[in-house]
Parts: sequence; C-alpha cells; structure tokens
Amino acid sequence: MRVAEIKSYLAQFFTSVEVIGNADLEIHRVAKIEHASAGEIAFIANPKYEKYLSDTNASAVIISNKIAYNPPKENQSFIVMDDAYTGFVFVLEKLMPKSDGLEVGTHPTAVVQSQVPESASIGANVFIGKNCNIGERVQLHANVVIMDNCTIGDDCLIYPNTTIYNGTKIGRRVIIHSGSVIGADGFGFAPQKDGSYKKIPQIGIVVIEDDVEIGANTCIDRATLGETRIERGVKLDNLVQIAHNVVVGKHTVIAAQAGVSGSTKIGANCMIAGQAGFVGHIEIGNKITIGAQAGVTKSFLKEGEFVRGTPARPLREQLRQEAYQAKLKDLFEQVKQLEKALNDLKRGSETTL
Amino acid sequence: MRVAEIKSYLAQFFTSVEVIGNADLEIHRVAKIEHASAGEIAFIANPKYEKYLSDTNASAVIISNKIAYNPPKENQSFIVMDDAYTGFVFVLEKLMPKSDGLEVGTHPTAVVQSQVPESASIGANVFIGKNCNIGERVQLHANVVIMDNCTIGDDCLIYPNTTIYNGTKIGRRVIIHSGSVIGADGFGFAPQKDGSYKKIPQIGIVVIEDDVEIGANTCIDRATLGETRIERGVKLDNLVQIAHNVVVGKHTVIAAQAGVSGSTKIGANCMIAGQAGFVGHIEIGNKITIGAQAGVTKSFLKEGEFVRGTPARPLREQLRQEAYQAKLKDLFEQVKQLEKALNDLKRGSETTL
Amino acid sequence: MRVAEIKSYLAQFFTSVEVIGNADLEIHRVAKIEHASAGEIAFIANPKYEKYLSDTNASAVIISNKIAYNPPKENQSFIVMDDAYTGFVFVLEKLMPKSDGLEVGTHPTAVVQSQVPESASIGANVFIGKNCNIGERVQLHANVVIMDNCTIGDDCLIYPNTTIYNGTKIGRRVIIHSGSVIGADGFGFAPQKDGSYKKIPQIGIVVIEDDVEIGANTCIDRATLGETRIERGVKLDNLVQIAHNVVVGKHTVIAAQAGVSGSTKIGANCMIAGQAGFVGHIEIGNKITIGAQAGVTKSFLKEGEFVRGTPARPLREQLRQEAYQAKLKDLFEQVKQLEKALNDLKRGSETTL
Repeated sequence: MRVAEIKSYLAQFFTSVEVIGNADLEIHRVAKIEHASAGEIAFIANPKYEKYLSDTNASAVIISNKIAYNPPKENQSFIVMDDAYTGFVFVLEKLMPKSDGLEVGTHPTAVVQSQVPESASIGANVFIGKNCNIGERVQLHANVVIMDNCTIGDDCLIYPNTTIYNGTKIGRRVIIHSGSVIGADGFGFAPQKDGSYKKIPQIGIVVIEDDVEIGANTCIDRATLGETRIERGVKLDNLVQIAHNVVVGKHTVIAAQAGVSGSTKIGANCMIAGQAGFVGHIEIGNKITIGAQAGVTKSFLKEGEFVRGTPARPLREQLRQEAYQAKLKDLFEQVKQLEKALNDLKRGSETTL
Repeated sequence: MRVAEIKSYLAQFFTSVEVIGNADLEIHRVAKIEHASAGEIAFIANPKYEKYLSDTNASAVIISNKIAYNPPKENQSFIVMDDAYTGFVFVLEKLMPKSDGLEVGTHPTAVVQSQVPESASIGANVFIGKNCNIGERVQLHANVVIMDNCTIGDDCLIYPNTTIYNGTKIGRRVIIHSGSVIGADGFGFAPQKDGSYKKIPQIGIVVIEDDVEIGANTCIDRATLGETRIERGVKLDNLVQIAHNVVVGKHTVIAAQAGVSGSTKIGANCMIAGQAGFVGHIEIGNKITIGAQAGVTKSFLKEGEFVRGTPARPLREQLRQEAYQAKLKDLFEQVKQLEKALNDLKRGSETTL
Repeated sequence: MRVAEIKSYLAQFFTSVEVIGNADLEIHRVAKIEHASAGEIAFIANPKYEKYLSDTNASAVIISNKIAYNPPKENQSFIVMDDAYTGFVFVLEKLMPKSDGLEVGTHPTAVVQSQVPESASIGANVFIGKNCNIGERVQLHANVVIMDNCTIGDDCLIYPNTTIYNGTKIGRRVIIHSGSVIGADGFGFAPQKDGSYKKIPQIGIVVIEDDVEIGANTCIDRATLGETRIERGVKLDNLVQIAHNVVVGKHTVIAAQAGVSGSTKIGANCMIAGQAGFVGHIEIGNKITIGAQAGVTKSFLKEGEFVRGTPARPLREQLRQEAYQAKLKDLFEQVKQLEKALNDLKRGSETTL
C-alpha cells in the first residue's frame, strides 16, 4: 500500500490529513518508531517520543500535528494529522486485518429452520428458528440463537452466545457482541388486588436500523405494543439497558451500564456517558450530552445542551450548584463571624459606636 | 370471543370494567380505531383519538374512563375501564397469542442426562445435567444449560442461553429471560497475610419460588451456606444483581440494573427502582419503595415508607434536604446582604440610629 | 479427618486458630450445634447459640473467639478462631466437596478445532476455535465458546455460556462464571463530519493473569492496541464493566456493577465497592478503597486512601462535606435568627442600646 493510498484511506475518516515527503513509497508492515525499518510505518502521538523521529528508518511516520518535526529524509514521508494514534490504528487494521475465523457456510452442528444465503457464515451450535430472513454475508458465531420470525440484514456480524428473540428486525451491517439479548419481554406487570402482579403481554418487537453496534451483555427489550427502535448508526456499549418502547435516535452513543426506562425517547447525535439512568416517558432532544451517573428525571429538549448530576440539570446550573457546595465551608465560617460581629454590636462593645 | 367474555377476562386483572351496549357481539380481531370494522375491537386511551369514536365501525371499543363518549351505536359496545391501553394489550394477546415456536418434545441436539416428562419442550443444544427434576410442560429454549441436581417446576419457561447452576431449586410458572445466570458462586474471599485472597467455598443454593419472572442477563448468586431466596411472585428486571444469601420477599419488584449486596433481606411487596444499590446485611421491611439510583446504606423497616437519595433517606427528609439545596443560592445572597447591613450598622451610617 | 488436621488446614487461611481439648478425634461430617453427635463438627459464631455448647454431643465445635466457653468435655474439642462461620464453611467444603459433575474428556457434541490435553474436561456443545492452547485439567462447561488463538492456562474453570474472544490469554487457575464476555471490542468510534461514527478497529487483546476470578455476566473489552490486563489474584464480581486498555492491579477486588472506563489504571490491592464508576485515562494507586456508587473523576495515588461520593473525594473531605449537608437546616435557621436580630438592632429596639 503506497503512502498516498494510506493518506486517501485516512482522509475518509479524519479531516486535514497531510503528506510531507515522498507519497509513492510502499508500506508493508507497521512497527514501533524506535524499531522501524524500510517498508514500515510507525507513529508519534506523544511528544515524549519526538526524539526518535530524526533517527527512525521507517518509510512513513504518522505524526500528530501537535508535534514539531524537521522535514523527512529522502525515501521517507510523514503523514501529519490530528489524532495520530487513531490514524495509526486504522492503518494497522488495514494492513493486518483481524480475522474472527468464521468460514462461509453452515457448520454441521447448527440447527437452521429457515433459508440461509450461501454467502452467510453460520457457526457451530447456532440455532435459527422458523420463518427468519437472513441477509447476504451474515456472520453468526457459535451458539448464537435467533428465534422465529426474525430479519437479520446483509453483512450483520453477531458474536457468540447472543440471543435474538422472536420477531426482531435488524438492519444491515449491524454488529452485536456476545451475550446481548435483543427482544426479551419488557418489564410490565399489572398490580392485582391481592398484592401480586399479572404479566402484561409484551407483543411488540425490537427494530434495529443499519450500522448500529451493540456491546456485550446489553439488553434491548421488545415493546409492549409497537416497537422499541434503535435508529441507524447508534452505538451502545456493554451492559446497557434499553427498556420497552424506547426510541434511541440516529448516531446517538450510549456508554456502558447506562439504562433507559420504558417509553423514553432519546434524540439523534446524543452522547450519554456511563451509568447514567433515565426515568420512563421523557424526551431528550438532539445533540444532548448526558454526564456519567446522571439521573435524568425530566425531558431536556434544547439542542446541544449538556446535562449532568442527580437529578440531572443543565451544566451551568449544575456547576453553580457544585460551586455552592464547594463554598459551604466558607459560608458556615462567614455566618459564624457575622453572629459574633452582631453580638459584639449588641453588647455595645464596638468601638465605632 | 363475545364482548361479555372479554369483559369477564379483563375483570380478572382490573377493577371496575364496565360494558355499555351489546355484550353479545362476537369479536374476532383487533384493529386501530380509525381502521376498525365489524368483528373487530379497538381502543381509545388518549383524548386526542376521541374524534374517531363516533365514526368507527368497530364492534367494540375499549375506552378510558377519563374520556367523554356518547352511547354506542346499535351493534356496537364500549368497554369502559381505567387503563384502556393495558386492557387492550391483554385482549390482543388473548385473541392473537404470541408463540415462541418451541415444540413439545426433546430436540435431537439436546444433551439430556436426567429424565424429562413427555409434556416438556427441550430446545436445540440444551444441556440438562444429572439428577435434575424437570416439571410438566417446562419449556427450555435453545442453548439453555441446567447443571446437575436442579429442580425446575411445572410450566417454567426459560429463554435461550440462560445458565442454571448446580442444585438450584425453581418453583412453578417461573419465567427466566435469556442470559440470566442463577446460582453462580457468591463473591466471598478471605484476605490472606500476603495481600492475596482465598476463595470461600460457596456451597449453598438458590431457591426461586412460584410465579417469579427474571429479566435478561440478571444474576442471582448461590448462598455461601444455606440459601439465596427469591420468594413467590417477585419480578426482577434485566441486569439486576442479587448477591449471596439475599432474600427478596414475595411480590417485590426490582427494576433494571439495581443491585443487592450479600445477606440483605428485602421484604414483601416492595418496589425498587432502577440502578438502586443496597449494602450488605441490612433489612428492608414490607411495602417499601426505593427511588432510582438510591444508595441504601442502612435498614428501613417502617411499612409503606418511600426512601430515596444517596445515602437513602425517607422521602420527607430527602425532600427537605433537596429543598435546602435548591435554596442555597438565596442563602448565599441573604448572608451577603446581612454582612452588608451589619457593616453599614457598624459604620453608624444607618439612618435609623 | 482429625481435629489436628482441620486445625492445620484452617491455619493456612486464618490467623490464630487454636485447639482446646483432644486434637486426635476423628471428624466425618458437619452438623448443626443443636443436633450434632459423635464424629461431627459444628460451629458457634453467634452468642445466641452459646446455650447449646454445654449440651452438644459434637466431637468438635468451631467457636468464635468472641464467645465465652467452659472447657470441652472428654472426647470433645473446640477450635477457637476469629471468623468461626467462614472457618466452618472451609471445613464443610473440605469434608463434603461440591462437584460440578464435569467429566474428564471431550463431550461428543463439542466442536474442538485445537488440540486439547487428555486431562481437560470439555462439556457439551462447547466450541473451541483454531490455534488455541488449552492447559492441563482445564474445565469448560456446556456451551462455552473459545474463539481462535486463545490461551487457557492449566486448571482454569469456565462456566456455561461464557464467551472468550479471539486472541485472549488466560493464566492458570482462573475461574470465569457464566455469561461473562472476555475480549469483545472496546467502545471506540471516530466521529465523522456527517454526524455518524466510524468504528476504530480494536486489534489489541485481553490478558488475564493467574488466580483471577470473574463473576457472571461481566465484560472485559479487548484493547484498541496492546492489552487490557487483569493482574494476578484480581477478583471481579458480577456485571462488572472493564473497558479497553484498562489495567487492574494484582489482588484488587471489584464488586458487582462497577465500571471502569478506557485506559484507566487501577493499582494493586484496591477494594472497589459496587456500582462505582471510573472515568477514562486516570490512575488509582495501591491499596485504595472506593466507596459504593462513587463517581471517580480524577486520579487518586495516595496509598491506603479511602475515597467516596460523586465526584469522589478522600473520605475526610467527603465526611466534612456530608456534615455540612447535615447541618444545612441549622444554618438556614441561624441565618434567619441573625436577620431578625439585625433588624431588631436596626429598629433601635434592642434594650441594650
């Protein structure tokens, strides 16, 4: 892969990627900056590795644009960009792609009750129920269970021990990590006179749109009626809880162990930090950021708002509140002084009187 | 199903269900209010759909008792009740029951080392260990693992990829969703002089009584000695953690991502909201409500109490505390004014002096 | 097993274990203090059972050193120690070891694509990928999935439905409970101009050192590049989240539902309570204790420190802050009184003026 090709590849994902030096050099492998030789590409993201730059024999070096450098040697080129580390990871994966070793075809131990295209990879002990619609090039790893009536779009990749319940509809290029459970019954019970609960049937489904990625051991419950919907491009981390009838808007990112209660609607392009929780039946607008461990108890609709704390408040309000907290010690002291001054005044001992 | 039968069915779960009009009409299907025709039942729970009521051709409409209506047409009847939405879901499920497609009998790929009744459904790749006692009509979905010496009561329904450890006793009509782990070792280690830990054997079991439902990816650990017990009718949501030797009292409901530490005893008919946490070795009484994300650090025994916050406090105390927080801004301002007034007074500049 | 042997066994794990009476008696079984007979061992950890001590026919009784006792009868001995309950559990397990019933050898339904030693136990429907290195006496329970290129050290015990991703390296004597996912992709995405995200390849691995125990449904993500590392002797509870490139130092204990964000480094011998959360890219020193539900937003490096709250603070600071909170009511009252006194003063109504 020539340096010019690497540059084009990176420019698909990053802004302002620049090549300094010979863009025609061929790159075959990656290496650490201090050990690299001809044909290899290295990176420097941290100024403390700057010293290796003048001596390296790497044919190419990805350099953070925060780092000072002299022009490259002959037969060398620099790729300068903002996030040199992530850029390097992309190149590494391009040059040495990770393989999960799943072969095209259906493993003889799989139990498949629906039709599967020839391009799909169905691993050992996979179960696929009846009336499922499995897309082209779908990869289902060992012990995945797909219950009846599911749709799995083209190019989906589902890791071992994942469960997809009855009727779930999954779009294209969706990645689901191990242990996740999609479409289990929502948590709905009608209280009875004797203190017991009667299960409310959960007859809706889960819909997951294109290009979603779901982490390990995450749960997305089916709707009571209608749908729980994860819109396209959403990224959910591990151990996330999405309750029945929730909607998560496109390109929203939810970090590990966050939980969203029933019927809450989260907008597009939000960023939700780890262990945050949302009560049910509220609405979060677009491009909203929710802080870690926040307890979100009401709707926030103002685009771009940053919300945190428990109960969650707009950042400005929350910071003011935190500032008050931090100054409590001073306040107690101040009141004590005031009381003393007042008593002095009362006793007529003030010299100014 | 006649309207009168639907009414009787709903009256099993809801109070004050009333029929207005012809109770003898036959209902075959469900439909939306705006599209419904003869033989169909629809619902109106939200006043904004009220306008469709006079024109609908539905044979029956379930109507919220908060909605105004004129008497039904001939050959039409209204079922008036409090929670029309949930009522409709019950009817929907009655008329069109969801099937998970598991057939009676044992799938040839299942590995079964105990005797199983003919009425049971044992899915693909299920593993049942030795000396288990499997009840009538038990349904074990694909890839469920039941280790040795377990009891699974009549009519239990266990979804794919669930694990039941050695010795677990499960009552009748228990539902367990995918990925849950019942009976893993409790988290007990004895600190050693060299800073390492020695595992404390966890030789107790888990007992789950009748009519419990357990969500997806929930963990209930076995006791160190004796039992961890989930009493009858308890409902646990997804990703809940129940530690060793915990008791959860009958008909208590615990929402997603809540966690209960070792040896804590929770009473009957409690409601515990999402992401709440309990320290170990405390006791919670009956009919206690715990707020979302609460951090419960001590026992609460007063029946009917509402507790929230971190550390958790009775609601009244917590609200007072929150009110103080909300007024902190005013307090800082007030103290500032007081200081100014006092200084004015000191300087003898007060006109009243 | 003679009483003297039991004493030696306990002394491996506990300090100051003492035998009073005949150390040569043979013990065959365990029993409750009130029912025990010759050849049996019982225990008293709770003073309310003290009354049974003089009458018991047990050959041996493990007694808490907090309990008063008269010398044992002839043909009886007491084992006196600090934590009599845990001591009893160790003896119980020694006399009646729990068996998980996994037989040596490979179950015919397992799909094994790597070489496995004869001493290993490979359960039903287990999948082992290519190029794996499986140690002696490894036990893999039903439906475990080990993807390609993994190393599983000698004497590891992995419970059902666990997933180990490609390239994971696991040391010796590691126990992993059901549903855990080791090596799923870290949560890394590069934001694109159009608001979508591009997945950052996660090509690192997870390394788990010797003697680690991992609870049920816990997630440890693979590194973006390099390693996520769990050092020797670490104990993780259920539903814990360990993100990419995290290091957890040796003999650190993390309780249920805690979460550690990417690239954070936790030192050795720390104790982290349940539901605590850590932001990414911070460092926690050695022997640090983190309170339940703490939100750790910055590094803490002072050995032995106790940290809690959100944002987490050293205990002393946090307690002071909590004390201020507790006194807020008084402060509001005090300021009100001050205001009144000042107004009185202003009005010249003070008799002292």
